[in-house]
Amino acid sequence: MPEHATPQEFSILATDGRARAGRLRLPHGTVETPAFMPVGTLGTVRGLTIDQLRSTGAQMLLCNAYHLAARPGTELVAEAGGLHGFMGWDGPILTDSGGYQVFSLADMLEVSDEGVVVRTQPSGRKMLFTPEEATRMQQQLGADVAMVLDECTPYPCSRERAEVAVERTLLWARRCLGAHGGGDQALYGIVQGAYEEDLRRRCAEELAGMSFDAYAIGGVSVGEPADLRNRVIDWTAPLLPQDRPRYLMGVGLPADLLDAVRRGIDLFDCVLPTRNGRNGWAFTRNGVIRIRNSRYRKDMRPVEEDCPCWACRNVSRAYLRHLMACREMLGPVLLSLHNVTFYQRLTAAMREGIRSGTLSGFGRQWPCAERTGGGA
Amino acid sequence: MPEHATPQEFSILATDGRARAGRLRLPHGTVETPAFMPVGTLGTVRGLTIDQLRSTGAQMLLCNAYHLAARPGTELVAEAGGLHGFMGWDGPILTDSGGYQVFSLADMLEVSDEGVVVRTQPSGRKMLFTPEEATRMQQQLGADVAMVLDECTPYPCSRERAEVAVERTLLWARRCLGAHGGGDQALYGIVQGAYEEDLRRRCAEELAGMSFDAYAIGGVSVGEPADLRNRVIDWTAPLLPQDRPRYLMGVGLPADLLDAVRRGIDLFDCVLPTRNGRNGWAFTRNGVIRIRNSRYRKDMRPVEEDCPCWACRNVSRAYLRHLMACREMLGPVLLSLHNVTFYQRLTAAMREGIRSGTLSGFGRQWPCAERTGGGA
Repeated sequence: MPEHATPQEFSILATDGRARAGRLRLPHGTVETPAFMPVGTLGTVRGLTIDQLRSTGAQMLLCNAYHLAARPGTELVAEAGGLHGFMGWDGPILTDSGGYQVFSLADMLEVSDEGVVVRTQPSGRKMLFTPEEATRMQQQLGADVAMVLDECTPYPCSRERAEVAVERTLLWARRCLGAHGGGDQALYGIVQGAYEEDLRRRCAEELAGMSFDAYAIGGVSVGEPADLRNRVIDWTAPLLPQDRPRYLMGVGLPADLLDAVRRGIDLFDCVLPTRNGRNGWAFTRNGVIRIRNSRYRKDMRPVEEDCPCWACRNVSRAYLRHLMACREMLGPVLLSLHNVTFYQRLTAAMREGIRSGTLSGFGRQWPCAERTGGGA
Repeated sequence: MPEHATPQEFSILATDGRARAGRLRLPHGTVETPAFMPVGTLGTVRGLTIDQLRSTGAQMLLCNAYHLAARPGTELVAEAGGLHGFMGWDGPILTDSGGYQVFSLADMLEVSDEGVVVRTQPSGRKMLFTPEEATRMQQQLGADVAMVLDECTPYPCSRERAEVAVERTLLWARRCLGAHGGGDQALYGIVQGAYEEDLRRRCAEELAGMSFDAYAIGGVSVGEPADLRNRVIDWTAPLLPQDRPRYLMGVGLPADLLDAVRRGIDLFDCVLPTRNGRNGWAFTRNGVIRIRNSRYRKDMRPVEEDCPCWACRNVSRAYLRHLMACREMLGPVLLSLHNVTFYQRLTAAMREGIRSGTLSGFGRQWPCAERTGGGA
C-alpha cells in the first residue's frame, strides 16, 4: 500500500516501442492493460449475464452516467449499493459522464459555460446538466473511475467551434475536479481539440497540469478517417503523464486498437462487439464473418476454431445463421458473447506481444488488426 | 434391456389418487414425470443457452417440426446431426408435428383427407403437408418422440367440425404409424374430439387400439375454460393405456398443470414461461409478479427468495424492472430463465407430492397452483 491510499495505482510492466503493457489497480480489482471495456450503457452489456461477461475475460466495464441518470436514476442505483450492487458486477467499472451523448444525441437544447440544457428521455423534461452534477451522479453510481464532463466536437469541426470546446472542456475539468470528493473513485480528464494540433496540445498540457488520475482522448470515433485519428493520438499521447493510463474513448475496430496501442494507448471502450454482434457480425482473427450470408447456411464449423467462448464450443455457424434469420434472441446473445470474447483475446494477445517485444509482427497472428491499405 | 429394444420405457413409481409419478426412458435420457417441457419451437428456447436451460432442471424440450421445416429445413438439421447436434441439447426432445400450427395459423389454405395445403413462411410457396411428410420430417429431425399429424379444432367448435376432425385424425394417425420407421424414435398419438364426450371417447378408444408409444390430448389450450378442459381430461385419460405416458398439449398455468396431474396427466409443454417472461411476468409460488409495476421500482429483493435460478441469486426485482423498462434484452432472458426454472420446481414438487401422498395439500406450499374460485 502507498503512503496515502489512492483509488488507483498504475504500473508499466513492459514496453515495445511506444506501446505499454501495464497493470491498473482499482478499488474493485486489477486490470491488465492494454484493456478493452465492454459497454454496458444502462447497467447491462446487452444480452449478457454477468457470468457470461466474466467468461469472456472482460476485466472492467463501462457504463453511462447520463443514461443511468434518466433511467433508473442515480439515487435508485445508490440505494441498490451502487452500480456494482445493482447489476451484480464485482469488478472495476468506469462511468462515462455523458458528454459524448449530450453532444451527439438530439436532446441537447442549449450549451453555455454553466452547463448543458438537455431534454431528458423518456420523461421529456428539461434539465441543466453541469460538471458538478455529472460528478455527483458518478459518485452516486459508485464507479471505480469517473470521467469529467467535456464538450465533444463532431467531424468535421470548424476551428472556431473546436476552440470554444477546448476552453469549455478545460473550465469544466477544473469544476469537476473541485466537485469530486476523491475517496474510492478515480477521476480522469478528457482531451478535446478536434483535429487541430495546437488545440490538442493546449488541452493536453493544461489538463496534465491538473491532478487527474489518468487522461482520455475524446472527440474521436465520430466519423474521422483512421489516419486523422492516429495523428490526434500522435500529437496528444506524448504530452500526457507517462505514469498514468491513457484512454482512447469509443474506439474501435481491431485495426484501430492496434494503431492506438502502438501509439501508447492503454484503455479502450466500444459498442462494436455487441452492436455488430446484434446485427450478425462475428469478429475473427481473419476478419469479420457476416453470419447471415447464405454461404454459412450449411457451415457446421464454429465461428472460430480456437475460440474458447461458449458459442464456439457449442454451436455452428449454420445454427447461428438460423437464429439470426429467424430473429431469435439467442442469435444476438451468442454473437455478442463471441465478439466480447474476441476483443478480450485480441487485447490479451497485444499485451503478450508487448511483453515479448513482438508487437510489430502482430498481424501475422491477427490479420484482422493490420491495415492492408493505407488509412481507414 | 427388454427383449426387443424399444425407443421408450415408462414405469410408474408412485400414485396419489389418479396422479402418477413415473419415469420415462428415452434414447437421449430419462425424464421424471409429471414433467414440463420448455418450448423451443425453432430449435431454441427463446433467449436461453443450452447451459442456462440445463440449469433450470429441464429434462426434455419440445420443438416444432412444421416451423423447422420452413426454417432452416429438416434436411439441413439432419446434416447437422439432427436437432441434438444442431442446437446442442443432448437430452430428450419431442417434436410436435405442426398440426396445431397448421390449424391455428393463417397459412392453411385447404384441408382434405389427403393432407393440408399450406403457404409456407417466409418463402410463401404452397406445400402439401401430409401425415407421411410430417412423419418423415420428424425422423429427419431425430427427435426422441414424434407426434402424429392431427386436425386440431378450435373453441368453440361445431359438432360437425369436431366429427370430421376426429375421423381425419384417426385416418392420419394410421398413416403416420404406417409411415413411421420406428427405430430410435417413439411415436405418440393425439386424441381430438373438441368438447364432445362421445367423440373424445371414440377417438381415444380407436387410438388406444393402435400401437402408439403414448397418447396426447390435443385440441385444448385454445381458449376453453378450465372446467371444460378438465372434463375433456376426465372423459379421455381413463381410456388411454395405464402403462403409457399421457401428454396434455400446450397447457398451461400452474393451476392448469395441477388440475391435469390430479387427473393422471404425465407430460406438459407450454410457451407461457418464456412468452410471459418476455412480457415482464415472473411466476412465483404465491402468484405472478408483473415486474414492470412501479411497486417494484425500489424492490431490492430477488423475484423469489428460495429460487435457485441465476436471476434470483444475482439480481433484484428493481434491476429486472429497469431492464424491462429500458427494453434491454437481458430482461426477457432473465425472466425466461426464472420462469422455466419455476415450472421445473413446480413439477418437481408435484412429483414429490405424489410420492409422499400429499398432492391434495399441494396448494399450501404452492398457492399459485390452487384455484381460489371455481373454474378458469
